[in-house]
Amino acid sequence: MPVNLKLPTAADLFPVAGLELGIAEAGIRKANRKDVLVMRLAPGSTVSGVFTQNRFCAAPVMVCREHLKAKQEIRALVINTGNANAGTGETGLANARATCAELAGQLGIAPGQVLPFSTGVIMEQLPIDRLLAGLPKAVSALQADDWLSAAQAIMTTDTQPKAVSRQVQIGGHPVTITGICKGAGMIRPNMATMLGFIATDAKVSQHVLDAMIAKAADVSFNSVTVDGDTSTNDSFIVMATGQSQAPAITGLLTPEGKAFGAALNAVATELAQAIVRDGEGATKFITVRIEAGRDAEECRKVAYAIGHSPLVKTAFFASDPNLGRILAAVGYAGIADLDQTKIDLYLDDVLVAKDGGRNPGYREEDGQRVMKQAEITVRVVLGRGDAARTLWTCDFSHDYVSINADYRS
Amino acid sequence: MPVNLKLPTAADLFPVAGLELGIAEAGIRKANRKDVLVMRLAPGSTVSGVFTQNRFCAAPVMVCREHLKAKQEIRALVINTGNANAGTGETGLANARATCAELAGQLGIAPGQVLPFSTGVIMEQLPIDRLLAGLPKAVSALQADDWLSAAQAIMTTDTQPKAVSRQVQIGGHPVTITGICKGAGMIRPNMATMLGFIATDAKVSQHVLDAMIAKAADVSFNSVTVDGDTSTNDSFIVMATGQSQAPAITGLLTPEGKAFGAALNAVATELAQAIVRDGEGATKFITVRIEAGRDAEECRKVAYAIGHSPLVKTAFFASDPNLGRILAAVGYAGIADLDQTKIDLYLDDVLVAKDGGRNPGYREEDGQRVMKQAEITVRVVLGRGDAARTLWTCDFSHDYVSINADYRS
Repeated sequence: MPVNLKLPTAADLFPVAGLELGIAEAGIRKANRKDVLVMRLAPGSTVSGVFTQNRFCAAPVMVCREHLKAKQEIRALVINTGNANAGTGETGLANARATCAELAGQLGIAPGQVLPFSTGVIMEQLPIDRLLAGLPKAVSALQADDWLSAAQAIMTTDTQPKAVSRQVQIGGHPVTITGICKGAGMIRPNMATMLGFIATDAKVSQHVLDAMIAKAADVSFNSVTVDGDTSTNDSFIVMATGQSQAPAITGLLTPEGKAFGAALNAVATELAQAIVRDGEGATKFITVRIEAGRDAEECRKVAYAIGHSPLVKTAFFASDPNLGRILAAVGYAGIADLDQTKIDLYLDDVLVAKDGGRNPGYREEDGQRVMKQAEITVRVVLGRGDAARTLWTCDFSHDYVSINADYRS
Repeated sequence: MPVNLKLPTAADLFPVAGLELGIAEAGIRKANRKDVLVMRLAPGSTVSGVFTQNRFCAAPVMVCREHLKAKQEIRALVINTGNANAGTGETGLANARATCAELAGQLGIAPGQVLPFSTGVIMEQLPIDRLLAGLPKAVSALQADDWLSAAQAIMTTDTQPKAVSRQVQIGGHPVTITGICKGAGMIRPNMATMLGFIATDAKVSQHVLDAMIAKAADVSFNSVTVDGDTSTNDSFIVMATGQSQAPAITGLLTPEGKAFGAALNAVATELAQAIVRDGEGATKFITVRIEAGRDAEECRKVAYAIGHSPLVKTAFFASDPNLGRILAAVGYAGIADLDQTKIDLYLDDVLVAKDGGRNPGYREEDGQRVMKQAEITVRVVLGRGDAARTLWTCDFSHDYVSINADYRS
């Protein structure tokens, strides 16, 4: 069961002018489930993407990078679930290109104007015939107002669709930002997450969008982890159709740029947190906040050491304030000159450890009370500087083992 | 249930001349269990130690480092289970020193000649009165031939004692090497493991012993992982009493040095593997062999990425050849210029992936057959150079979650 994750309804999700969505059931892995999503963008849109740093990146990730680099105007995205098209060699690359070519033909655009995405099982060839046969169905279904179905069409082990939509005023005109994402396991995004797509009708110049997506990825998808496994297919895309009446956004620091950037970050962060709330087997939503570090990088290291420790994660699952495990993780995070006598540890407002040792005033029942909550903040004060970093993660339960021991069956 | 781990018997374990063992039940955490071990060394022994790189190292680790650095002749070790004396601040340090002082008084030696060790729960103060009260019992029990009880006395979540003993001929005379260790969780040793003690009656000069322990740790305890959690208390000690008739070992590359070093490495490796075989919840013993890397460090990174991946470990638990997860781990291991098209993956003798993609001749049933075995070798050929590295690890099961969700209760 996801942790405090609201199920989105179609009514919550604003359409984005200049973007249409088409969904089909192509039977990629299982019959009778939505597994192909096509997004069509109006001419004049700008698109930015960031992708996994996994060196074993999937074929569609390679093709996306090529197509974005070639700077043809991107006009369509095609996403399939059920198969990740990763670890598939030359055949996989040919299949990703064939998918772009086929969709381009149907839409009357060039193959280089299509970005392909895949998610699902690794190291099995994409059933390309079934995927290509599904494309006309998705194209004929294209319509503006189907974000909930789109979110459903990209799910794998997700237990519920993830979609967030907001409207903000930019220069006195409403601008819409609507996004979807998927992911529940193999989640330790490095530059992006499994699959995240955000669209807006704002008009945003390419260089501004490129800068904004990097920032948005940093504070959202690059700040969550479920199991520490960086996926082969992580992709995060922001699309701006420019069809709103709001003034164009041409800088990061203009009033419009700041307002839009903040809204984009908020949508991306809510989507990223949704992945953690629906993390495989998750029963707790944990915020790990590292403060008073020398720089953001060392705070990040400590946060991930805590967020990836199986011992810490199983203690959260058990609601057991076995909090020495958190100190141990801080200690092995890789800060060579860390002074343990400067470190304080809080669980929500409870001071658990002070100056590196158990706080004499700490009572087990206070820790126990916080550990029983569904949402918990772990705060570590390093006593070394002014930098801080926040990571969101979940616990480690029997269901995680069951889900991943049974995934392919 | 441990994976193919032979239960040692008292008859398997040779006593080491010049070393006596004393065991007591001090009720540190639970009543009626052996939880204090004293080792007394004859004058003229040499002792080397390596310790955790965790910056949150435990109080006894700090005291061990001090005492070894001061170069007084080490004459005794004292080990307790039930409490790790880690995350315990100044009080913890005072307790570790008090333990040394009390034992020194009873043995008629100086406190600086005692090395203290603790293992168990973190961030709770050592019940020092109970520990001190147990010392006279352990001292009065000192005898040469009690290695099996010693191995039992240092267990925590271990399901069985771990002890290895060998005799080798050095210069025509028998030399004995006997060692014990403990550990099943919080196992990702960095310079040493939770607790490992090896004693020999060989005569080994201090600088040779220091060099040999580094090598032995590298090929044994530093080459295993259970859950990736580097402990606060890792300590690995080698003691040489010099009471054998064999010629003194004064160099690493002399015939005697090579013979003794090889035997020491073998004993250390068998002990380290015992920890993995008895890893918390383990049902499989996995050898991860990385070959054709540019250097040992990058091979190590890839091996640990595979060995720590919860997705890989749960697939092994399920006997499911979901082997793309291994490729994904190789890809995120942190080798920036890794070329995926050069990589081959073997499961035992089965070629699963070739040149970064699924081997066309690979059949699922071949992978399935290997995955069902209790012992499996994953071999990744990076195609970048001549370096290699081996890591031993285990799978990730429901029992791991149960054990760590219930540890303190």
